[in-house]
Amino acid sequence: MSAFLGEIVGTMLLIILGDGVVGGVVLNKTKAHNAGWIVITLGWGLAVAMAAYAVGGISGAHLNPALTIGLAIVGQFPWADVPMYIVAQIIGAFLGAVVVWLHYLPHWKVTESPADKLGVFATAPAIPHRAANLISEIIGTFVLVLGILAIGANKFADGLNPFVVGFLIVSIGLSLGGTTGYAINPARDFGPRLAHAVLPIAGKGPSNWGYAWIPIAGPVIGGALGALFYKLVFLP
Amino acid sequence: MSAFLGEIVGTMLLIILGDGVVGGVVLNKTKAHNAGWIVITLGWGLAVAMAAYAVGGISGAHLNPALTIGLAIVGQFPWADVPMYIVAQIIGAFLGAVVVWLHYLPHWKVTESPADKLGVFATAPAIPHRAANLISEIIGTFVLVLGILAIGANKFADGLNPFVVGFLIVSIGLSLGGTTGYAINPARDFGPRLAHAVLPIAGKGPSNWGYAWIPIAGPVIGGALGALFYKLVFLP
Amino acid sequence: MSAFLGEIVGTMLLIILGDGVVGGVVLNKTKAHNAGWIVITLGWGLAVAMAAYAVGGISGAHLNPALTIGLAIVGQFPWADVPMYIVAQIIGAFLGAVVVWLHYLPHWKVTESPADKLGVFATAPAIPHRAANLISEIIGTFVLVLGILAIGANKFADGLNPFVVGFLIVSIGLSLGGTTGYAINPARDFGPRLAHAVLPIAGKGPSNWGYAWIPIAGPVIGGALGALFYKLVFLP
Amino acid sequence: MSAFLGEIVGTMLLIILGDGVVGGVVLNKTKAHNAGWIVITLGWGLAVAMAAYAVGGISGAHLNPALTIGLAIVGQFPWADVPMYIVAQIIGAFLGAVVVWLHYLPHWKVTESPADKLGVFATAPAIPHRAANLISEIIGTFVLVLGILAIGANKFADGLNPFVVGFLIVSIGLSLGGTTGYAINPARDFGPRLAHAVLPIAGKGPSNWGYAWIPIAGPVIGGALGALFYKLVFLP
Repeated sequence: MSAFLGEIVGTMLLIILGDGVVGGVVLNKTKAHNAGWIVITLGWGLAVAMAAYAVGGISGAHLNPALTIGLAIVGQFPWADVPMYIVAQIIGAFLGAVVVWLHYLPHWKVTESPADKLGVFATAPAIPHRAANLISEIIGTFVLVLGILAIGANKFADGLNPFVVGFLIVSIGLSLGGTTGYAINPARDFGPRLAHAVLPIAGKGPSNWGYAWIPIAGPVIGGALGALFYKLVFLP
Repeated sequence: MSAFLGEIVGTMLLIILGDGVVGGVVLNKTKAHNAGWIVITLGWGLAVAMAAYAVGGISGAHLNPALTIGLAIVGQFPWADVPMYIVAQIIGAFLGAVVVWLHYLPHWKVTESPADKLGVFATAPAIPHRAANLISEIIGTFVLVLGILAIGANKFADGLNPFVVGFLIVSIGLSLGGTTGYAINPARDFGPRLAHAVLPIAGKGPSNWGYAWIPIAGPVIGGALGALFYKLVFLP
Repeated sequence: MSAFLGEIVGTMLLIILGDGVVGGVVLNKTKAHNAGWIVITLGWGLAVAMAAYAVGGISGAHLNPALTIGLAIVGQFPWADVPMYIVAQIIGAFLGAVVVWLHYLPHWKVTESPADKLGVFATAPAIPHRAANLISEIIGTFVLVLGILAIGANKFADGLNPFVVGFLIVSIGLSLGGTTGYAINPARDFGPRLAHAVLPIAGKGPSNWGYAWIPIAGPVIGGALGALFYKLVFLP
Repeated sequence: MSAFLGEIVGTMLLIILGDGVVGGVVLNKTKAHNAGWIVITLGWGLAVAMAAYAVGGISGAHLNPALTIGLAIVGQFPWADVPMYIVAQIIGAFLGAVVVWLHYLPHWKVTESPADKLGVFATAPAIPHRAANLISEIIGTFVLVLGILAIGANKFADGLNPFVVGFLIVSIGLSLGGTTGYAINPARDFGPRLAHAVLPIAGKGPSNWGYAWIPIAGPVIGGALGALFYKLVFLP
């Protein structure tokens, strides 16, 4: 399998399991309804770990444009391949969101709130506040990219890598996710938001495109800062 | 121990710990009563991990006809042994369910709902809808079999294998289990449903055989599709 | 450090962390008050893992007479040392319980229920029923000893052993603990019950010695059966 | 990077993720609001694990004056470097707290209770009682330092070290944290308390300096006792 296809499949798995856990907690009449923050954060962390196990050997399992850019900044990934990876990640995220829509087919119409339905696909801030929301996404993704680079620089059993990165995601979710819902990944937010916009979801509302730039700009800025910090402070 | 006996013992352990956690959460007056989705999903995931530690070296710890068939499709298990494994898995699942009935002996009559009692043994959909329920089981088992094949293709410490697979089950449970209760394993549903039908459970209701084909057909189809996807996309 | 002292220190740590988590959840005005079954079960599992990390290299970290006897049955521990280990485990469990009493010093008098206070130290059945409670303890300890023997027979990274055993305890707690509170260890119940009887705990009630034989007999029988099952089914 | 800078960066990460999880659970209108003890304890444990992955290879990732002193007592760290490490840890903890304040910017004014706001930064006892609170911090840090020394003396996969230590923190939090909020680290409490005193936090109250000596003295005494216990009992 090519790296391009690997990123598509990996990001698709990420979103099936990641948006999947939000669907379980948020949509009405599921057995996971209102199961709480521990379920959301563990679900997303394991989604990353499992997607990384699946395609780590094929594409490196970036699954996230902010990480792809960060790796390019520190010289661990060629800039020329960055656009291809980002395209693959958005395609994969879109396709994953389609699967999640299908998985919860009878649950959309029994869920009243259009905001809850959008929440399965895309992030929304707990308190809308442009500057603060942007800062939150920057801080979260800074920790993500710095963490992945620092973990990768440690020597540890190769096979544990996806697991440790998965628990880094759990950690960021638990500790920093409560403000904006921790997109910390432009593809994770944009791809499913696009799917929300085009899919025939029963009783859906608007896709809140006005907010969509924050979970793109914040992660890109935060990831770049995390990579620069690693380059300037950790590498010399 | 023969592989046949290994699959019986392993699937029995799987169901003791798996149906056991449902019993704890669902049955009245237990100390785990209403302990929530995180308990159910972690309980089932650790059940798989522990059963795999126990018999992984003996039978490979398939514990699931959908996985046995999937492994045969990708050429990692002989077709000739598939029927023997499936028979062992159903026997083990039945025996495990008997132990769970015994374990909760005084709790059956203090639990009112017959549906709750059946829920300890067999899955039921959150919203009954044949096509959607079948699709849910297909998606869940697709991720399961694809995940196990992809994880197995990675190099990692051998001793972690059962743990990583266990957390794959936790992940599927958290993210995709809320619709149909994630049978994702025909033996896990059929064996205990049979036990429910024949055991003298205090105040039990019908065993809902009308639904029983979905957690058989869905996992077999989903597992086969996952194996084919792996063969066509990952292997070339 | 001698193996005798190792078992004392290890079992003391086990009970500090194990009875400690019950104290946090059960006693009034703690920050962990009513934190639920996931906290109890993860707390006990990590207690075992951490105690095993601490003294695994010194005494093998049995920490449990039922396991010591089970290991002797399969020929992995000399029968002559069994009494010494059991004495050490009871001493350690008693001392650990004293530390827990000290740790929660101002919380005893603000907790009304004497049964809750006893529950920090010793187990009690959800539904009192001699035969069923005994069977529950037998089943739980059967899985424990069989699991430990089977895990030990697998090849995996040495350093993970305590962790995997800790998650076996989490698994048994989640799945089988809801009936009797899973003593599955005679020293874990008897030592702290003795401490409850002699310590000046504010507003304490009786130590319920009438039930005390079940978390001794059940684990010893279940552990022996688990060891025999391993010897007869797994070893040949 | 120097060890001095490593301890600053590591402790900063620790507090971003550690105080971060308290902020998520305690502050009003976050998505993690009232998510419970399992979220707090897992959040702090993963904070330690991730910070240790980040700077373990640079400074040894003490991140805690009580541990630095403990390591000096057993001869695993030079006494001459102890003051430098403690200064770095306090600086890092202070800076981490500033980031947490920024991360939750719009949430401070929608949270009414000044005690809850202080709780994001510094610990407070469940029941104020000088002697008992001091004993609680001594016991918690005794287990921490003894545990780390004993774990380090085991042979296990190097790369797992931060993870195992992280779960030791989860264990201490679950089992012993409910009384004083388990500072078990003078820098973790003092640095953020200082930040609380100087930052322009909307609607903040006093920084409760009257209690501040307990989470300093308790951990130092407990850590020293744990190290001495290890030296006298484990090493000979």
